[in-house]
Amino acid sequence: MGKSITHKIIEKHLVSGEMIPGREVGLRIDQTLTQDATGTMAWLQFEAIGGRVRTDLSVSYVDHNTLQMGFRNPDDHRYLRTVAAKSGAVFSPAGTGICHQLHLENFAKPGATLIGSDSHTPTAGGIGSMAMGAGGLSVALAMAGEPYFIPMPKVVKVHLTGALTGWAQGKDVILHLLGLLTVKGGVGKVFEYGGPGVASLSVPDRATITNMGAELGATTSIFPADARTREFLEKMGRGADFRELTADPDAEYDEVITIDLGTLEPLVAQPHMPDRVCRVSELAGKAIDQVAIGSCTNSSYSDLKNTSQILARRRIPPSTDLLISPGSKQVMKILAREGLIEPLLDAGARVLECTCGPCIGMGGSPVSAGVSVRTFNRNFEGRSGTQDGQVYLASAQTAARLALDGKFTDPATWGDAPERVELPAEVPSIRDLFVFPPDNAEALSIVRGPNIVALEEFDDLPGTIETTVALKVGDNITTDHILPAGAEITALRSNIPAISQYIFSRVDKEFVARIRELGGGVVVGGENYGQGSSREHAALGPRHLGVRAVIVKSLARIHRANLVNFGILPLLLADPGDYDRLQQGAGLTIPAERITPGNTVDIRLASGETVAVTNDLTKKELDIIQAGGLLNAVRNNQS
Amino acid sequence: MGKSITHKIIEKHLVSGEMIPGREVGLRIDQTLTQDATGTMAWLQFEAIGGRVRTDLSVSYVDHNTLQMGFRNPDDHRYLRTVAAKSGAVFSPAGTGICHQLHLENFAKPGATLIGSDSHTPTAGGIGSMAMGAGGLSVALAMAGEPYFIPMPKVVKVHLTGALTGWAQGKDVILHLLGLLTVKGGVGKVFEYGGPGVASLSVPDRATITNMGAELGATTSIFPADARTREFLEKMGRGADFRELTADPDAEYDEVITIDLGTLEPLVAQPHMPDRVCRVSELAGKAIDQVAIGSCTNSSYSDLKNTSQILARRRIPPSTDLLISPGSKQVMKILAREGLIEPLLDAGARVLECTCGPCIGMGGSPVSAGVSVRTFNRNFEGRSGTQDGQVYLASAQTAARLALDGKFTDPATWGDAPERVELPAEVPSIRDLFVFPPDNAEALSIVRGPNIVALEEFDDLPGTIETTVALKVGDNITTDHILPAGAEITALRSNIPAISQYIFSRVDKEFVARIRELGGGVVVGGENYGQGSSREHAALGPRHLGVRAVIVKSLARIHRANLVNFGILPLLLADPGDYDRLQQGAGLTIPAERITPGNTVDIRLASGETVAVTNDLTKKELDIIQAGGLLNAVRNNQS
Repeated sequence: MGKSITHKIIEKHLVSGEMIPGREVGLRIDQTLTQDATGTMAWLQFEAIGGRVRTDLSVSYVDHNTLQMGFRNPDDHRYLRTVAAKSGAVFSPAGTGICHQLHLENFAKPGATLIGSDSHTPTAGGIGSMAMGAGGLSVALAMAGEPYFIPMPKVVKVHLTGALTGWAQGKDVILHLLGLLTVKGGVGKVFEYGGPGVASLSVPDRATITNMGAELGATTSIFPADARTREFLEKMGRGADFRELTADPDAEYDEVITIDLGTLEPLVAQPHMPDRVCRVSELAGKAIDQVAIGSCTNSSYSDLKNTSQILARRRIPPSTDLLISPGSKQVMKILAREGLIEPLLDAGARVLECTCGPCIGMGGSPVSAGVSVRTFNRNFEGRSGTQDGQVYLASAQTAARLALDGKFTDPATWGDAPERVELPAEVPSIRDLFVFPPDNAEALSIVRGPNIVALEEFDDLPGTIETTVALKVGDNITTDHILPAGAEITALRSNIPAISQYIFSRVDKEFVARIRELGGGVVVGGENYGQGSSREHAALGPRHLGVRAVIVKSLARIHRANLVNFGILPLLLADPGDYDRLQQGAGLTIPAERITPGNTVDIRLASGETVAVTNDLTKKELDIIQAGGLLNAVRNNQS
Repeated sequence: MGKSITHKIIEKHLVSGEMIPGREVGLRIDQTLTQDATGTMAWLQFEAIGGRVRTDLSVSYVDHNTLQMGFRNPDDHRYLRTVAAKSGAVFSPAGTGICHQLHLENFAKPGATLIGSDSHTPTAGGIGSMAMGAGGLSVALAMAGEPYFIPMPKVVKVHLTGALTGWAQGKDVILHLLGLLTVKGGVGKVFEYGGPGVASLSVPDRATITNMGAELGATTSIFPADARTREFLEKMGRGADFRELTADPDAEYDEVITIDLGTLEPLVAQPHMPDRVCRVSELAGKAIDQVAIGSCTNSSYSDLKNTSQILARRRIPPSTDLLISPGSKQVMKILAREGLIEPLLDAGARVLECTCGPCIGMGGSPVSAGVSVRTFNRNFEGRSGTQDGQVYLASAQTAARLALDGKFTDPATWGDAPERVELPAEVPSIRDLFVFPPDNAEALSIVRGPNIVALEEFDDLPGTIETTVALKVGDNITTDHILPAGAEITALRSNIPAISQYIFSRVDKEFVARIRELGGGVVVGGENYGQGSSREHAALGPRHLGVRAVIVKSLARIHRANLVNFGILPLLLADPGDYDRLQQGAGLTIPAERITPGNTVDIRLASGETVAVTNDLTKKELDIIQAGGLLNAVRNNQS
């Protein structure tokens, strides 16, 4: 039986386990990436483990908290620079670009495994890397040479035929899939792209698709490494990193989805979820207050060249703001060389720095109740920084065209679509902008600011947990709900006691006061609890506040792993209907010592009733939780 | 007797009063400018007055709160755009550039009067405009066609001989003057530049000098309009705006200061005051964590072209961050055309948007206790957003060179100085980026966000004020001390009740709670109270909290006017030695009804002692204070 790309890579990196869907496999990790919002904590954890970086390559990017409002973020960035130099990692300073765009251009390799403390790490799947988002602690362990453990995913083949036409872009492929499968449609799965349509897609289009595969809840997404991949890598000066990587012709898949690229038209995800997809034409007439182009999803040279071409010699209406954040200084340099920046300025666009920017609420918030069309990957409520902002997700080409109109219009009225962009013959390198680890690491010291607080020690899991439902929430709770982003809060990412006061602040302003009063508690939730970003602070913060278990219908993959890593029991309702029986404020007793992998136990309510809960934990995961978290477990193993 | 430029302009615009130093004169105002941090309040006040803009030109710039963290700033910007269209003002959207740079390039005129709700409005003096910083309410009244009242200034001639050599720049001229005269050396004076050295200075150098004349406490600074001015305006496509304007050969001045430009060398102002000036060479060896180039003082094409030339083919050390904020999209466009952006990126610099940025603490804060060399105009403690940041002020050329070295070095080691830059033959226009008022103003509506709170009504001054010293502070208290800048606080500029909770928060965290408890109070201060920015919130906020008087040794000009405008008595200690007798917490009685212009009255302390206070108020100013503020006085006059 032939093998998929996914099976080939996993087999080659398999350290433990069997490749049977759902069973835990341990993978050797070739590369890691961290960014500053999650990375400061990951590097503190790496320091707690000790030693030097043992991967082939680990890169520490600064792209999130680049506004640097006050000393905290610049202190974090200085810490990241000095700990990278000391530990043997590459450092990418603020403003160099967005981690995923930079990693794709400069470091990712076909066939390599990559984990990153950012949920959009699968971007590198665009050139055939098996790239997964992970909690910071998992990345820290991988940097220390430990394997990365995941449930062996199912592999879904996305069979592409035909070719994109007109205004349809790579973004529309993934929006189409999101509309089809929903934000929980990819849980436990790898989406592997194949078929004759693949060759028609550029690497940036492929990377947009694998990037936003994260919104499906997928383990990752991956494209073959083919002639277009080779050309891309050669233009990046990295021809030597290429190796062909395709599925065997007779590879078997757990599922196959076929998409005829030729049938796609411009799509848009409506507020407030990336799977609320409709055709752009359906919204014709709706006024647009703001357009934002950029983010790790759509900030490539081809996205911005098309944007510049669409805007050239035109002026956006004053009632619509247009913000553009290029993905990297390489993109910026090509735009500058080709005279493509002036048309952006002349059209009235604001050209921001090469960072995540408005995508993570770092500025660029819409007006009150404002309609904002963004080329980003998430439109969760409030993520833009404006609680009642109405965020729509679209391709760069669609966004640029809509900016000119100042409202949603029917693509049938847009005229000729822009060219499908190829990289220029001569692509400038920005390799000198990375700080490679020096030879004299012993002589270096790590510099910490006053906001960088060492990790606290967590105690192990009690045999019986007497607790209270401190909060009850609904379906599709995101990590933005659990811990909001934005400059003010994100500046506290290296200080768990300080950041914990914002846990669930968007959902329930009384939560922190209440759980402190209670001395701890559990959270009850619905389906797909913890979707969204990889931020482990969404587990660390609750743990700091005394959350020892969540009781939900289902969990998002990375958040589930983060709960395990920080010693919080991820319990699943045996009967989802019991959700209605667990009320906020209810006292309950969890027989933690009776929990074994996959078994069902009864939680006793103060009322005397019982609710059956189960789990999908492995023995190893349960051991970690019982030890009080992964750092404790690692320490116990070492002693 | 011949006339100075200052006298010629004032004479031509004189509406009331006599041109005798210290006497109040009323001036017809040709142009106004507002920016978004002070302008939202100014425009609310303009609305309260009613009518359409009656100046030749009023421009509403957005350059301060451009990060737009959350809905408040974008809502303010939308309000500013719509109220400008409705009222007949030009609107400059976020990202177009910094108000003073844009006004110099696009609108300022030799011989015209200009007031702006920003203390660095004198930048336009670089081309011979009589340009003054003012409180927002004064600007609102000028927009409504009212005269602007100032004490007739003394005129100081700064007689320039020789020409700058080597690395010395326009910035070093004004730093030299600041070192000589201190931050209160210019109070009540206009600095008028003349002499054979003037012709050697470019318009950007002149504008840097007049810009930072604000730090002398001067009413304004002004250069002649000569052949270089003509060339500048012609290159801006504004040859028609030129008129020659020079002092008569036999003009008399109140004071003359002579500077031989040829003797100047690179200077730097040390923390935390712009007058703590020393030679760059004196600091050789001190490590530099951050360099920031930009702001209304040094963000011109010539500043950034030199920066690019100095950095070309070199790399700043990773331990030094370099942030660059071009002054306008015009500057950015010329840089892009001439291939000057790539060398900045290649050197490792971060190219930010064309806004005020780090100068006002909008991001770019230094690391804890970090040394930051900035081309800005102010280095007040904490203004950078990092309370213990060590900010040094220097020219762009000095800053760029120091960035390469990563530490202060002796200019003798710097090698050849960069060329003195001329504008290119072809300067691109950005006129289309301004939003000019439309013809159909009646059909337009003004859009307000929920954070835009209408002005409260203030009551008139009681005959006797029974009050308490709610706060006692020292010398040189800045408006940053009274009301800090920074994104979080500045977002509240259109909401006085909300912003008032930050009054004096950097000086005394208990102040607001205390004065609320007291139900009002007075502030006691030393010399030069209220220096710095023109923000009238530093008067409005205290007034909202019940401050009815300040009792100080001396006052900065714009803040004094703001106190009058909002009905706060600016009282001067008849004997500065009595400062020691007024303790925080002391109860006192102010016989307000007995105060007349320039008289001395006794304040009675609860202890029974008395303290004599005087004032330099005109009858008109006192009437305004007694009415409870200028808006009340205008309303009383109208009724």
